[in-house]
Amino acid sequence: MSNIVGGDEWNVVQEGFNLDNNKIYESIFSLGNGYMGVRGNFEEGYSGDTLRSFFQAGVYYPDNALFGWYKVGYPRHNNKVINATDIIGIKIFINGERLDLAKNVFTSFKRTLNMQNGLLSRSFILIDGNKRETEFQFERFLSMHNKHLCVIALSIKSINYTGSIEIEPYMDGSILNEDTRSNQKGFWIEVKKDFETLVVKTKKTDFYLASSMKVKIYQNGIIKNIPMKMIKRDRYVGQRYRINLVEGINTRIEKFISCYNSRITPKSEVLKKSKENIKKLSSYDFKSLLSKSEKVWKKKWNNIDIKIEGDSSCQQSIRYNLFVINSTLTGEYPALNISPKGFTGELYSGSTYWDTEIYCFPYFLYTNPKIAKNLLLYRYNHLNQAIENAKLLKLKGALYPMITLDGNEGHAEWEITLMEIHRNSAIVFAIYDYIRATGDQKYIENYGFEVIGNIARFWANRTTYDKANDKYQILGVTGPDEFHNNINNNWYTNLMAKWVLLYAFKQAIWLKLNNNEKYIELEKKYNFSEEEIDTWKNISEKIFLKTDKELGIFIQFDGYTNTEQTTIEEIPKDELPLAKNWSWDKINRSSLIKQADVILGLYNLSNLFSIDEKRKNYKYYIKRTTHESSLSPSIYSVLAAEIGEVQEAYKLFRRTSRIDLENYNNDTEHGLHVTSMCGSWLSIIKGFIGLRIINDSIIINPILPKEWESICLKILVLNRELQIKINNRNIKIKLILGSDIEININGKLYLVSNKKELVINSNEKHYDSKNDS
Amino acid sequence: MSNIVGGDEWNVVQEGFNLDNNKIYESIFSLGNGYMGVRGNFEEGYSGDTLRSFFQAGVYYPDNALFGWYKVGYPRHNNKVINATDIIGIKIFINGERLDLAKNVFTSFKRTLNMQNGLLSRSFILIDGNKRETEFQFERFLSMHNKHLCVIALSIKSINYTGSIEIEPYMDGSILNEDTRSNQKGFWIEVKKDFETLVVKTKKTDFYLASSMKVKIYQNGIIKNIPMKMIKRDRYVGQRYRINLVEGINTRIEKFISCYNSRITPKSEVLKKSKENIKKLSSYDFKSLLSKSEKVWKKKWNNIDIKIEGDSSCQQSIRYNLFVINSTLTGEYPALNISPKGFTGELYSGSTYWDTEIYCFPYFLYTNPKIAKNLLLYRYNHLNQAIENAKLLKLKGALYPMITLDGNEGHAEWEITLMEIHRNSAIVFAIYDYIRATGDQKYIENYGFEVIGNIARFWANRTTYDKANDKYQILGVTGPDEFHNNINNNWYTNLMAKWVLLYAFKQAIWLKLNNNEKYIELEKKYNFSEEEIDTWKNISEKIFLKTDKELGIFIQFDGYTNTEQTTIEEIPKDELPLAKNWSWDKINRSSLIKQADVILGLYNLSNLFSIDEKRKNYKYYIKRTTHESSLSPSIYSVLAAEIGEVQEAYKLFRRTSRIDLENYNNDTEHGLHVTSMCGSWLSIIKGFIGLRIINDSIIINPILPKEWESICLKILVLNRELQIKINNRNIKIKLILGSDIEININGKLYLVSNKKELVINSNEKHYDSKNDS
Repeated sequence: MSNIVGGDEWNVVQEGFNLDNNKIYESIFSLGNGYMGVRGNFEEGYSGDTLRSFFQAGVYYPDNALFGWYKVGYPRHNNKVINATDIIGIKIFINGERLDLAKNVFTSFKRTLNMQNGLLSRSFILIDGNKRETEFQFERFLSMHNKHLCVIALSIKSINYTGSIEIEPYMDGSILNEDTRSNQKGFWIEVKKDFETLVVKTKKTDFYLASSMKVKIYQNGIIKNIPMKMIKRDRYVGQRYRINLVEGINTRIEKFISCYNSRITPKSEVLKKSKENIKKLSSYDFKSLLSKSEKVWKKKWNNIDIKIEGDSSCQQSIRYNLFVINSTLTGEYPALNISPKGFTGELYSGSTYWDTEIYCFPYFLYTNPKIAKNLLLYRYNHLNQAIENAKLLKLKGALYPMITLDGNEGHAEWEITLMEIHRNSAIVFAIYDYIRATGDQKYIENYGFEVIGNIARFWANRTTYDKANDKYQILGVTGPDEFHNNINNNWYTNLMAKWVLLYAFKQAIWLKLNNNEKYIELEKKYNFSEEEIDTWKNISEKIFLKTDKELGIFIQFDGYTNTEQTTIEEIPKDELPLAKNWSWDKINRSSLIKQADVILGLYNLSNLFSIDEKRKNYKYYIKRTTHESSLSPSIYSVLAAEIGEVQEAYKLFRRTSRIDLENYNNDTEHGLHVTSMCGSWLSIIKGFIGLRIINDSIIINPILPKEWESICLKILVLNRELQIKINNRNIKIKLILGSDIEININGKLYLVSNKKELVINSNEKHYDSKNDS
Repeated sequence: MSNIVGGDEWNVVQEGFNLDNNKIYESIFSLGNGYMGVRGNFEEGYSGDTLRSFFQAGVYYPDNALFGWYKVGYPRHNNKVINATDIIGIKIFINGERLDLAKNVFTSFKRTLNMQNGLLSRSFILIDGNKRETEFQFERFLSMHNKHLCVIALSIKSINYTGSIEIEPYMDGSILNEDTRSNQKGFWIEVKKDFETLVVKTKKTDFYLASSMKVKIYQNGIIKNIPMKMIKRDRYVGQRYRINLVEGINTRIEKFISCYNSRITPKSEVLKKSKENIKKLSSYDFKSLLSKSEKVWKKKWNNIDIKIEGDSSCQQSIRYNLFVINSTLTGEYPALNISPKGFTGELYSGSTYWDTEIYCFPYFLYTNPKIAKNLLLYRYNHLNQAIENAKLLKLKGALYPMITLDGNEGHAEWEITLMEIHRNSAIVFAIYDYIRATGDQKYIENYGFEVIGNIARFWANRTTYDKANDKYQILGVTGPDEFHNNINNNWYTNLMAKWVLLYAFKQAIWLKLNNNEKYIELEKKYNFSEEEIDTWKNISEKIFLKTDKELGIFIQFDGYTNTEQTTIEEIPKDELPLAKNWSWDKINRSSLIKQADVILGLYNLSNLFSIDEKRKNYKYYIKRTTHESSLSPSIYSVLAAEIGEVQEAYKLFRRTSRIDLENYNNDTEHGLHVTSMCGSWLSIIKGFIGLRIINDSIIINPILPKEWESICLKILVLNRELQIKINNRNIKIKLILGSDIEININGKLYLVSNKKELVINSNEKHYDSKNDS
């Protein structure tokens, strides 16, 4: 946990190179454009420790699922987005030997990610055995304007000699996965190739990927026609050029690659489109293409940027988080979703988790509601599979998968995370959240109720009646805290199920009153009945939610207070993280938890709980939370801000937002914590800004850490675009788009009109958020 | 569940052949001699559904362990006894085509296992396309006299033609495992071969196996010298002979194979010994070798036989059980133990489970105490690994593995069975049982206390103090009932741990008083202290054992009575077995249990509980027990007999003893339920005979099912050999060996002297077994 990068508010910079931590930087310098992803690998290759990865979003392979003993309902396959054709590769041969920073001597290594335009550049001076010095500069970006395009420029300059060099820009479809369970020798087979094109397809899933390449070579700015030697192997096309180097003369190689995959484009068209796309580029060069992409980034930043004055470290990290999130999901492709590591590593297999609804969805909801709606439709489109999934487990209604790429369950950790059925409620909660922030109640009629009704049916069926107490229990689950599996009455799971059942009941009533025809249609389609819908309300009212009156807390699960009682403070540093040092036997019996659980419930349904309840639970659970899930600190940060512990909120925010820039969890090498980066946004908007929407009213309740002089950001809410500026003297709210609206700020109502920016003092008292919804 | 075999009290017979259930019979007709094992495969090969398996006891390979997500302390390897050189093979070619019962036409198929001498014979008449008929008879046995020897005789007779036939007796080391997780192309590589010998060794574990073969051919009883053609391939040696067949003339091929493996014999000697062994046989033939082996069986039967009059089905099945158990473990090799499927299939990987201590140990204890002592020493010899295993899980003391071949944990089902730490108590209980039945208290000094002390230390460390109630809990376990994992305060686990802690405390006191030098030596070796030993007693006194006063039962685990309440009766037949029809999600939340759990506790510590307690718990739990573990019915049978439900005891005994002969659990194809067969013996001895030893006194309390006219058996106990004969009129006890002893029969004391058989009426009242031990 140290500053492993430098730079400034718009740039992330690495100076100098260390063989030992290359994979961390490969993750940090990942690029993506919502269609493709590339880790910060070296164009010229690297024989040291590396994870060379190129992803085509959503292009997956059904790897073997592993289990000690198969049980009914276990998935047989574990779908994963696999490594695809290497599109960045440019081999470089000096004196016949391949350039390789793991072996060569070099100086002045510097790498910069420009977050404003998505340009990644890298430079170094190579010193060979004869003291000849050559300067290399690489630049690359994935176009935000033409999503199929990867553009690379390589500048080479001899500093003190005349000689020659060979380069070989290539496309290589023989790339392997590091993580594979089926001992596959690669997941791809070749379909076709020529001097500029490579078409490969995946085994089993039959996804096609066509890549076309064009290379332009300039010397001192003038384009050169240099003879090319074609290099062909199975799944490999390279173009070899010999280039003369003269002292002081700059040689610049530009490589353009166009990729089309059949996850998005029909199989029959990928080859044609990829060739056409590369042909169209003839009149463009690196600079002009970068400029087009930059314009898209500029427009994005205009909407999403969060300006923090007085704290350049937080300014850098929140921009880095926003950059990564927006590189991962751009919203044009409804079949795609956002995975915990995005396109930055193999871990989590590029699949969709409940992270989407709880962490990412609110971000998109308040910055780009169309993408948010697409994320809801993603689940709507998988409803039938969720119903099938429940059936497999002998349950009624719909159970959405723990991880998925196609709507089917693809999870591989049976007894622990597969039991996290709380994921089902997150999907309903996102619908509620969407309607609350957009006012689009129509969504219920067109899509929402089908999902909500089937999930309510699931919960009604999954509860177990306790006759003695006239209560409903939920047995045998894992809560968000993955340190305790197969527990009974997880407070979070019960709370959310209770809420879902009541919300579903209310939406049924609403639908019946407002569109009875649709209501009857769905009643028929899913065999709902008034009797069943009434049970949702009844069960909801009787779901257990246990409290410990003495401690003044909600009990995370039955028996939690009887676990081995300890707090984080008592654990020697060298035993952390627990997951890497303690056995499951020990973890599972301990009172220490992995991540926000009860606290996540208080966060989700914030307005159902008093500040006092939040404070007591926060104080209790934070002492017992290891934050070994990257999803944890952001939620604690929101609660800390809400209960007035602003400096603790700040610490937790930093931990979230700089998780990869400081390699907090010591696992950045595997990829970035993409979905948890949305948590940084939550910490700001729901924590420091204190944004809530209750009964169609916008509430804000800001509190800034002392390090921040001011913050400025925009949100889209209830069909308005608002700009919010806060410093320690005043709060300014500007209505950029939409009609006048009243906003409750620090407990008092203000009218925000488009006539004039609202400016008020920021010294009001905290309000208590407990309120019926 | 039907009679799939015929036969009589000494023979198991299959008449006719059905392609669909070949693997069931392959299991049923398995042979073993404690050194090797062979399934009932056909010598000539079979292209239909088959599991062709040859085991060398204890010769294993470290297969890859599988897990969705690795956790600290998980074993990386899953050792398994692997398929070894095919020693029975004799290829038969008729008109150049290979004889194959999956493809050829034949009549009069009959197979017989003679349990008295271990001879397996099989005959059929082959009818070829030209209506030529040939009679085949195969006989084989694994010698009990020379453990390295497999002997086969093949008789061939033409019924209606003159012609020729080719045969190829062979040894084939290229055999594969059906169950492998490492995609290995076999686990063996060739070391050496010649015309009569094949030496192979395992990859990684480097176990050597030398097999030598001799073939003798007779026609009409006269030995023939027929030219042999040698067939050699990688890991394969065959001897091909062409034989003329003349109507009515019998040709008899005798194949002798001698195997030496380096699990038992030094690597450097296996080849030499195997060649020597086969050379020695020159003067013997099938018949003389069978006679030697038969003598050993005869001696065994004289000690172990249980004669049941009036019920030929039970007579057959108890003999079958005894035959299989004694084919699996013969006791000469202390490094070997007994696996749930013995040498009859790949499942359970030939490894040792807690089945050994709870199910098999008592059988050997009362029939062959030397073997029982070896089984204790097996664990004693693994104490260091058990201490290491506990350390891996960050626990103190010793935790014996759930499954093992070499003392290391080799389990592959993490969250469920690995949590069955109750296995640890079974090891102490076996020591107690041994001393109780043999009076060999010296065992404590020499070996026992080291194991007991380290297991007590484990339990003391593994309990969690509940301050509020001043009680100790055991959290996060799986009990014997594998349908409920990660539960708290499993009654069985708590009961046994409580008992172990007190027993360990008492043994420490005993050792200190009786051999203080040894006590001090062990105190130093393991760093025990009086203070620690005192905590064992304290914790023991305060371990939770929950009862439900209303129901009058012991509660299987915290929250058991709040699970989804149902009974077996309410479950539709087509949903059974649950493990194959219900999801884990559903099984885990249900009140239905897989096997004896509370009942097993009442069985183990029988004298601590009253008949009334036993009756109430039996009545409650039997309605909720699916018996999906083969280990379950026998224990319920003992309890049923004890509470006077003799016909229910009988039903449960039948289910146990005929589990494979009737394919009760529909899984005999994978191998026989060897360890649970010991349960049949328990049902008789502890159930129908009602044998107990309390405070150095023998107690019997017989009760016979109405189907049985009489039962007669021998036991070795407290240095006496007793013969017990019971019918519905009287109980006869004969002291065969040892000094006079008093026996409590049906609550009254009788002197049994070697002067004369004791004969009493069998119409006394039940006694109540509750008694301090």
